[in-house]
Amino acid sequence: MSSTTTTIIAENKAEQIAETTCNTVSTTAGGSSSLALPLFGSPGQPTPKDRGQGPFESYPYTDLLPKVYPNLGEIGEPLEDFVHVDPGMRALSHPNPRKFLQRATRIENFCPTIGTEIEGVNLVKLTPEERDELALEVARRRVLVFRGQDDFFEAGGEFWKEFGSYFGRLHVHPTGGHPEGLPEIHMIYRDENTVYYDTENITRGMWHTDMSHERQPPGLTLVVLYHLTESGGDTFFTSGVEALKRLSPGFVEYLKTLRQIQSAVDPIQVTRNGTRSRNIRRPCVTTIHPLVRRHPVTGEESLFLNPEATKGILGYKKQESDLILDFLYDHIAGGLEGQMRVKWAPKTVVLWDNRVTMHSALFDFAGSPERRHGARITPQAERPIPALDGLRLH
Amino acid sequence: MSSTTTTIIAENKAEQIAETTCNTVSTTAGGSSSLALPLFGSPGQPTPKDRGQGPFESYPYTDLLPKVYPNLGEIGEPLEDFVHVDPGMRALSHPNPRKFLQRATRIENFCPTIGTEIEGVNLVKLTPEERDELALEVARRRVLVFRGQDDFFEAGGEFWKEFGSYFGRLHVHPTGGHPEGLPEIHMIYRDENTVYYDTENITRGMWHTDMSHERQPPGLTLVVLYHLTESGGDTFFTSGVEALKRLSPGFVEYLKTLRQIQSAVDPIQVTRNGTRSRNIRRPCVTTIHPLVRRHPVTGEESLFLNPEATKGILGYKKQESDLILDFLYDHIAGGLEGQMRVKWAPKTVVLWDNRVTMHSALFDFAGSPERRHGARITPQAERPIPALDGLRLH
Amino acid sequence: MSSTTTTIIAENKAEQIAETTCNTVSTTAGGSSSLALPLFGSPGQPTPKDRGQGPFESYPYTDLLPKVYPNLGEIGEPLEDFVHVDPGMRALSHPNPRKFLQRATRIENFCPTIGTEIEGVNLVKLTPEERDELALEVARRRVLVFRGQDDFFEAGGEFWKEFGSYFGRLHVHPTGGHPEGLPEIHMIYRDENTVYYDTENITRGMWHTDMSHERQPPGLTLVVLYHLTESGGDTFFTSGVEALKRLSPGFVEYLKTLRQIQSAVDPIQVTRNGTRSRNIRRPCVTTIHPLVRRHPVTGEESLFLNPEATKGILGYKKQESDLILDFLYDHIAGGLEGQMRVKWAPKTVVLWDNRVTMHSALFDFAGSPERRHGARITPQAERPIPALDGLRLH
Amino acid sequence: MSSTTTTIIAENKAEQIAETTCNTVSTTAGGSSSLALPLFGSPGQPTPKDRGQGPFESYPYTDLLPKVYPNLGEIGEPLEDFVHVDPGMRALSHPNPRKFLQRATRIENFCPTIGTEIEGVNLVKLTPEERDELALEVARRRVLVFRGQDDFFEAGGEFWKEFGSYFGRLHVHPTGGHPEGLPEIHMIYRDENTVYYDTENITRGMWHTDMSHERQPPGLTLVVLYHLTESGGDTFFTSGVEALKRLSPGFVEYLKTLRQIQSAVDPIQVTRNGTRSRNIRRPCVTTIHPLVRRHPVTGEESLFLNPEATKGILGYKKQESDLILDFLYDHIAGGLEGQMRVKWAPKTVVLWDNRVTMHSALFDFAGSPERRHGARITPQAERPIPALDGLRLH
Repeated sequence: MSSTTTTIIAENKAEQIAETTCNTVSTTAGGSSSLALPLFGSPGQPTPKDRGQGPFESYPYTDLLPKVYPNLGEIGEPLEDFVHVDPGMRALSHPNPRKFLQRATRIENFCPTIGTEIEGVNLVKLTPEERDELALEVARRRVLVFRGQDDFFEAGGEFWKEFGSYFGRLHVHPTGGHPEGLPEIHMIYRDENTVYYDTENITRGMWHTDMSHERQPPGLTLVVLYHLTESGGDTFFTSGVEALKRLSPGFVEYLKTLRQIQSAVDPIQVTRNGTRSRNIRRPCVTTIHPLVRRHPVTGEESLFLNPEATKGILGYKKQESDLILDFLYDHIAGGLEGQMRVKWAPKTVVLWDNRVTMHSALFDFAGSPERRHGARITPQAERPIPALDGLRLH
Repeated sequence: MSSTTTTIIAENKAEQIAETTCNTVSTTAGGSSSLALPLFGSPGQPTPKDRGQGPFESYPYTDLLPKVYPNLGEIGEPLEDFVHVDPGMRALSHPNPRKFLQRATRIENFCPTIGTEIEGVNLVKLTPEERDELALEVARRRVLVFRGQDDFFEAGGEFWKEFGSYFGRLHVHPTGGHPEGLPEIHMIYRDENTVYYDTENITRGMWHTDMSHERQPPGLTLVVLYHLTESGGDTFFTSGVEALKRLSPGFVEYLKTLRQIQSAVDPIQVTRNGTRSRNIRRPCVTTIHPLVRRHPVTGEESLFLNPEATKGILGYKKQESDLILDFLYDHIAGGLEGQMRVKWAPKTVVLWDNRVTMHSALFDFAGSPERRHGARITPQAERPIPALDGLRLH
Repeated sequence: MSSTTTTIIAENKAEQIAETTCNTVSTTAGGSSSLALPLFGSPGQPTPKDRGQGPFESYPYTDLLPKVYPNLGEIGEPLEDFVHVDPGMRALSHPNPRKFLQRATRIENFCPTIGTEIEGVNLVKLTPEERDELALEVARRRVLVFRGQDDFFEAGGEFWKEFGSYFGRLHVHPTGGHPEGLPEIHMIYRDENTVYYDTENITRGMWHTDMSHERQPPGLTLVVLYHLTESGGDTFFTSGVEALKRLSPGFVEYLKTLRQIQSAVDPIQVTRNGTRSRNIRRPCVTTIHPLVRRHPVTGEESLFLNPEATKGILGYKKQESDLILDFLYDHIAGGLEGQMRVKWAPKTVVLWDNRVTMHSALFDFAGSPERRHGARITPQAERPIPALDGLRLH
Repeated sequence: MSSTTTTIIAENKAEQIAETTCNTVSTTAGGSSSLALPLFGSPGQPTPKDRGQGPFESYPYTDLLPKVYPNLGEIGEPLEDFVHVDPGMRALSHPNPRKFLQRATRIENFCPTIGTEIEGVNLVKLTPEERDELALEVARRRVLVFRGQDDFFEAGGEFWKEFGSYFGRLHVHPTGGHPEGLPEIHMIYRDENTVYYDTENITRGMWHTDMSHERQPPGLTLVVLYHLTESGGDTFFTSGVEALKRLSPGFVEYLKTLRQIQSAVDPIQVTRNGTRSRNIRRPCVTTIHPLVRRHPVTGEESLFLNPEATKGILGYKKQESDLILDFLYDHIAGGLEGQMRVKWAPKTVVLWDNRVTMHSALFDFAGSPERRHGARITPQAERPIPALDGLRLH
């Protein structure tokens, strides 16, 4: 899950209004609010340990704190295209593609169309064939929640990288910090020192899909939480396949003809607004994606869009583009069908398919001083396949 | 929960378009969709048992099937005002107002601001003082989910009525069917014979609060399910208190000045549309309610509105009224903060406070032939207290 | 121009709220307001002369007052299809298709893209060839305003019918009153006795096109005013061709694939609301029209829609249909380009092409006791030709 | 009228998408489009004469071309507050406050509530008392159009300044060019060399009020056109007083409590987007204005807002602010009542009161190579008086 949230600086609001409105047209008047991250972990700022937030000596996941950030001024090479072969594809021909679940002591579906909770299956011990089946099951159920994965938590960074890379080339976050030696592990971190800017929005939730601006965005994605807040912090998922099915066939046919322009939030712009200052590892990328993509393994069609990165519909005027995109964002947010929420617990591993889902964090822990610490492993998948055959993407 | 959903007839659509558009302006062109109920249980239609839906002989809750409907043409007396004294008020002065939970073997909060799941407390055995505490706890936590209430399920109709009436005068549904001799038990029922009209809406969910058009709408409300579908059918709740808190103080101050016109869906109109035909027990009521109400026990302020019954803002032109109400409906639907979902299980009793929550059914079982059968007990509470002192409601 | 406006009853509002919300769901809560006409001229109500509104003896247009209304209960035959040959087509091959303007003493364009004001051309004396040219010029300029047409005003009913029928079969209004013996003359009338219901809308204007729900809606249309208010009452026109051109090519391509369901406002429904009671001459018609039509003579493509009659987009769910239609209504209302306004004067004849324009009345005379009296002659044209070749309309 | 229009660069669109979306979040994705002016007259760019656009030798208004622009890097002093005494106030006690119109040969109202066209009154010869009456009449009729003002056109810059300053301190535009020695004359200019960026909007019209971000925005304002295009270029006006009257009393009461944050478009931001590069004469100003202001002379209440400068409602979250402002913008654009359009002609002087009107240009001449050249004289008036007594504006 992206740790990005939509906020603006609250303190000293009165003075600020004058300043921001004069310096940037878009800050208070624009359609999309300014985007800002919690300040923690920005370059030039202390890493968690330095900030005196308690007995880190005894914290078992000290090595997994985000300590390494890109250096100011060093912008690396862009990601190169690669050939992605989805492991789930191989499981399609298995006699029983759900064989890896035979050891499960509990299998419970959250809803008919999304989400399954599983106990008794040790992810560390999966054979390659079972990993293939896992990939297929994640695609089919959208989200799998594995409880009691003590072995997985203890396996450590090298295993996690090996495990993740089985499903696709591991993505390195363009701006986030990472533990020493593990750039492929994207950190989720907040504690009492985290500054949450008071939001200008009426909700902090935002349905999105991770890193979708990349030419080859993630497919199967994995998150663990090392340290949880006592309550709160559930993660919401919803199925892009179900969201599409609730629309009428004629409207879906139209949506399939649309192409979106995606790009990452520009860190330089953010800096200029005075709300965030940090470096990036790679030049900014702009990509043309279909609005409706087809899953390479299941063949299912899914809405695919992301308010954090979707800039507009290719060839459309702004009002036309807003019309369609805002409708779809509201459709996704308003549709309870196809939605689930994950309640986190220690030793839980959540896997989902970013190609056919959107998700949202829930910042109901924002007022608490507790630590929340986790990691995302983000294998990249294929360039999105348009549901409409032959749709031109360049 | 209301079993009302927003649907229109799907079969023979082509012919129907011509007919409905000519006969009723509002059906396809109006802002709010036509409202229609599943046909089951309408007067003149067979009750569940008659419709041959399986071995009712062996169904343990045969006596609790909705069999009695108001007769066509008999319209009774309107509800009279009564003085409601909220039991929760007494618990405010208890030394430990959560004493009734001391026997609990498990108490788990769904989220910091809404919903608690409780095991080990037998609702049947609560003393009057503990019932007072229950009322207060429901108001404070918005929703309480009691598991393992075997005694409650076996206690039967007279106990349920006695239990419910402790919290307020029991409401009799204006149109719904009820078990013989138990008009105060509002039935929830669907099975393989239930006709779900294909929806014209892109979601079947609808956030609402029950029977809010009454001059004294429900406070604490109770639902049990006798028979569940195998999966699906979760119920969503959200807190009107939290929804209000996420708005800016100036906007909230304004909302407090607004009064809404509420009335029940008119059954005659529905009949005329050809989509529903059934009787009513009482004349239609139109009520002026505040848009922001204050809870009489906790003093908390909550958004209070209901797309099923809220007709407009008093004194406003239609576009102005739509502006404010649609914004608030979207705000409620879009805000994940303050939202929870109840997963039903056998022997579960759910209590919530209709004054400070909205809820929505999830019809993800619509395609299944399974039976879903339950009951709602709906004590009425005080006439809504405006959050703005002195707001004139007549 | 349609004399229909969007209003609701204002008097005795307090009582009425209760009644209307209970009796009709849609009146105050629906997306589109209830539609009501000024009461004047309803069956069972006195005709202008009877209502003592002044010295009708001296009013030169007494014979042209709307006196004949359809009888209650008599519903006639539906309109039959006919073959329309547009006279403008013949003018295409004229050496100078604007030859009929050679006698003009003044030709002034309102704007580059719409509207021309003409003096010195006597419409009564046009030869058939010149009438063909007139039809073509109306199609090209959208609206022609002929000043000083004393002869036309004196020519009388039989001439008007002959003149109008040159351009297409004359339409008889389904509900309106007409002068004795002249059912093809649609009357525009208001005076001090006209009851304008206080509007629930924030504007009384409504961009529409006349009688568009017919299978063969009007093309060239003519209006004269016999008696004007001293000021106010301008008529607004806008070009559907220009409105389309301001959209992006990709979005236009999509709109061309859409089909709308149109039907007339149902007079029975209106009666039931208590706001209007009158008869109809023909059964209600529902028609499928393209959303973008092609003019048969100029080949130009135009948006074609009508909030009074357009019920939805064929095959779409309500929210999808509203999305597209509301966007287009706002686009038409908000775009000043392609818009003009006609200032009426005695002896003025206005002709426009209902296929490529929308228009709106301006009720700024509503507070005045003055008489406003005019007539519309409404030749029907071809069944709308979809801009997208082969679009299926049945 | 402001010569500002909403456009973006069209050429080389494909490349640009990548660049703009990466460099600026708001350009394509933001709610309000980027704002850009025609490039003509920017510093470092040639003035009209230099650009070889025809026989300027024979152009009689060569001296009135915008030649002087602020120098890059020189930012002057902010405007100081001053005491404004409205001349219209004095006319209130005149026995006949419309005495200055006695010489008129024609007085015609455009509509009952806005706009009067006047012939026969020579503005140059008005006595001080008559100038007072003019100010009052402009306030009352919103817009006065004086035809045949040959003397006024010949009177020249010093007279224009003297005439304008009678009504208030003359405003100097923060960025525009001016004729040598006449900084108080704001130029309107376009010709064949003017680059109009292809708009991303579906209309180029924008209802606004001039320079409203200043602490003391303009009241009576005057525009003349020295050189007109052959057709097109009408100016639309609408009455903020009428727009307010069409809303319900309760909603108006609420609007009166609101305060808006206004600031000028930031030229630096615009530069950064690569769409405009020019200097400013004064630091950027942010002002708190009431949303409903009271005219100091007539006491009338008017909506007062400006999409070019209004950044939000003070104290509101973004979505709440957008809700109210977008509704009002649509209300103003959609309401034909209270709207008029001025058809320009040689020797015409238009005066309007920017405190009680909004206006929009019509760029239907954009495709023509013709010159359009005019001037605006912009006396500043009082700090806006809130319609709600005691509303705090700081």
